[in-house]
Amino acid sequence: MERIPILRMGSFLLVTIQVDLYDRLALTLESDLVQAISKTGAQGVLIDISAVSIVDSFMGRIIGNIASMARLLDAYTVVVGMQPAVAITLIELGLTLPGVQTALNVEKGMQLLQSRIQVTASVEEAPNEDDDAGSPE
Amino acid sequence: MERIPILRMGSFLLVTIQVDLYDRLALTLESDLVQAISKTGAQGVLIDISAVSIVDSFMGRIIGNIASMARLLDAYTVVVGMQPAVAITLIELGLTLPGVQTALNVEKGMQLLQSRIQVTASVEEAPNEDDDAGSPE
Repeated sequence: MERIPILRMGSFLLVTIQVDLYDRLALTLESDLVQAISKTGAQGVLIDISAVSIVDSFMGRIIGNIASMARLLDAYTVVVGMQPAVAITLIELGLTLPGVQTALNVEKGMQLLQSRIQVTASVEEAPNEDDDAGSPE
Repeated sequence: MERIPILRMGSFLLVTIQVDLYDRLALTLESDLVQAISKTGAQGVLIDISAVSIVDSFMGRIIGNIASMARLLDAYTVVVGMQPAVAITLIELGLTLPGVQTALNVEKGMQLLQSRIQVTASVEEAPNEDDDAGSPE
């Protein structure tokens, strides 16, 4: 197992983590992912952790790093498929995954990404919305 | 690693194989997948093997089994993301993955599935097309 595959689905990238992230694998994933975002112009990254039964502080940090890097390249990151037991353990360990959005499954994650991208696009398209108060749209 | 996650994406299911399929894991995958098809009514299964560097006769047989089982439940299976080296090795070993369709990546696999489902639907909607010869549609 040399690298975790990154699948392109429309304007999103999907990463399914099925193995324990050790140091080199995590670095490879970070580097592969930023390159993939840059190459494809992806607007969102979905990280599926439904096969992960333990999220420790290392993995939490890697996920946080990925989200921050993706944000710098104008892509949002959503972590999907967290097992209930993982959520319990994370909070018991005091890890709240700051800066990382989550969704129950891939479909809901995609909806979340799509709504965020639309919000961003509409804000960018109408920067003087406040001046327009009262006009119907 | 107890089971390979199955992700639902619209009317398709996506399975990313990242580890060697040993006997019990393969059986679990088969059973999980047919249950997921039955539960979700999925019309297509995408099996991503981009992280697999060796496909031997065992794995070829498992993929063939999955495709046959899915077909019985009215779902098509497409294997996507095969590495060039894997294609070379498969043919050198005399394994041609009979009954299994392939596509270059997930996006092309989804297009293939969508076109197959549309063809099937249009054939089912117009069973007496031959009697209608000459009428414009």
